[in-house]
Amino acid sequence: MEKYVQGILAGDKRSTAKIISLVENDGPEKKRVLSQLYPHTGKAYIIGVTGSPGAGKSSLTDCLTKQIRKQGLTVGIIAVDPSSPFTGGALLGDRIRMQDHALDKGVFIRSMGTRGSLGGLARATKEVVRVLDAYGSDVVIVETVGVGQSELDIMDVADTTLVVLTPGAGDHVQTIKAGIMEIADIFVVNKADLDGADKVKTEVEGMLDLSCHGNGWRPPVLLTITRTEQGITDLIDAINRHKAHLESTGSFQQARKERLRTEVLEVVEHVLRARIHKSVEASQDIARLVAKVENREVDPYVAAEEIISVGI
Amino acid sequence: MEKYVQGILAGDKRSTAKIISLVENDGPEKKRVLSQLYPHTGKAYIIGVTGSPGAGKSSLTDCLTKQIRKQGLTVGIIAVDPSSPFTGGALLGDRIRMQDHALDKGVFIRSMGTRGSLGGLARATKEVVRVLDAYGSDVVIVETVGVGQSELDIMDVADTTLVVLTPGAGDHVQTIKAGIMEIADIFVVNKADLDGADKVKTEVEGMLDLSCHGNGWRPPVLLTITRTEQGITDLIDAINRHKAHLESTGSFQQARKERLRTEVLEVVEHVLRARIHKSVEASQDIARLVAKVENREVDPYVAAEEIISVGI
Repeated sequence: MEKYVQGILAGDKRSTAKIISLVENDGPEKKRVLSQLYPHTGKAYIIGVTGSPGAGKSSLTDCLTKQIRKQGLTVGIIAVDPSSPFTGGALLGDRIRMQDHALDKGVFIRSMGTRGSLGGLARATKEVVRVLDAYGSDVVIVETVGVGQSELDIMDVADTTLVVLTPGAGDHVQTIKAGIMEIADIFVVNKADLDGADKVKTEVEGMLDLSCHGNGWRPPVLLTITRTEQGITDLIDAINRHKAHLESTGSFQQARKERLRTEVLEVVEHVLRARIHKSVEASQDIARLVAKVENREVDPYVAAEEIISVGI
Repeated sequence: MEKYVQGILAGDKRSTAKIISLVENDGPEKKRVLSQLYPHTGKAYIIGVTGSPGAGKSSLTDCLTKQIRKQGLTVGIIAVDPSSPFTGGALLGDRIRMQDHALDKGVFIRSMGTRGSLGGLARATKEVVRVLDAYGSDVVIVETVGVGQSELDIMDVADTTLVVLTPGAGDHVQTIKAGIMEIADIFVVNKADLDGADKVKTEVEGMLDLSCHGNGWRPPVLLTITRTEQGITDLIDAINRHKAHLESTGSFQQARKERLRTEVLEVVEHVLRARIHKSVEASQDIARLVAKVENREVDPYVAAEEIISVGI
């Protein structure tokens, strides 16, 4: 493992891929490796890209990557699909994407699905971001489908979050998923050459008129067409403005600190949960109590409290 | 609360709705109420219905409900939408559905979304099933979109799980979501009047040929058209056959026991997690440790272990 850690810090792609697999599989050496990498992290700027399936998140990520590379910065891309069992770039689309960047040492792409993320997908994403950060990526882009709570948790790693919408019935404001609105720092109306793009923009702006922007940042609503790269420069500008806003108001450090705090508590929970399961598995009491629950003598809450009171 | 509990046990719809809201909002009296209802549960047969958005799960549930009602049995329906913020039947479609059954005391319909399910949607679903069970529903149908892990957790309440597919590109076997295949006791190819229904059936059967059916039950693949109610009688037969299979092999009690065991452990975790957060909030140590993590002196794992070793 030691040599892979050294490899990552020296910017070696293969070592990075190896360690990411280790992290995803929640291997026994994971903790030690992450511990060794940790002092070398915190430098990458994290951009989240979320939106409905088919909104063009991957193409948008590719356009952003090209622009960022032109500025001489390196990019790590993590494509998270909570509904996919595939991990490690097994999907055809990702393989094609990877070929585009295969020769560019400044771009690292990784797909993550549910399989091979035994410690939970949000947890694994956070850790893979850290690996790419240590690898030296100046920018890490995390893209994921915006559907449920787990996807919101995944987006929680980002400094700047883009919510990608498209013209068309499914994206009218009233159907925008709960929770997704709140996490947007920038709205992108992609496929803006389709009918109705302006309508979507107007609707989102109308909704933003009604929201309060307590942190002093009103999310801009930008139009993009990835095929022609229209609007991408403006999008990069908006990301930079958001970054500058975060830094000037102290929100940048504050938000990162808050996230680390949450993460530490999550790890505490994770460790304790593992302990509970281990000690409960071995217990005779639990079998007796479950039988009682089965016979409707006590309900699951009472049984749980009895287990806790006995002490774990 | 006492009178609502009595109301449920007497088969009063309004009391049932009240208590379900209490459960969803994770109110302070929830535990006591569930405890009082618990001895009156375990009688309902639970059917899970899952599949992609637009597969016709609601129409299928309605068809099943009609047939089950004809047999003189009562039905509780829980429509869970993990991507919706709405709860309590606020969606237009559900309002229309409810009107259909509004005068039928033997049918209770409830929509659940993420808002108002503060204790987690899978947890809340389990508890609402129990309320409907105590209310006297002979059959409880839980329908939910099959997307991520949380939806799989929701389906975990069911004795018999139907996976609903439709003809068309999105449902070819290779794109069937991971995890969904494993939970199917019965496959339903709905909208079977559309082109390609037989192809989907053939593909699923082919896939089943390759799977092992260790429990002696090979999921049947049925074609249905909800508009004309074609195939619904066969589907009811298949559900009854699955039920008989579970009972004759002892799997019915075994699976329910296993689920109760899991539930007790979940509650243990839930209670402990709440305790951790409470004691950690009050701690000075945590602030000091998070600062260390922020300065990259220790990583989150080391900080977490230090917190645990200090004792919570």
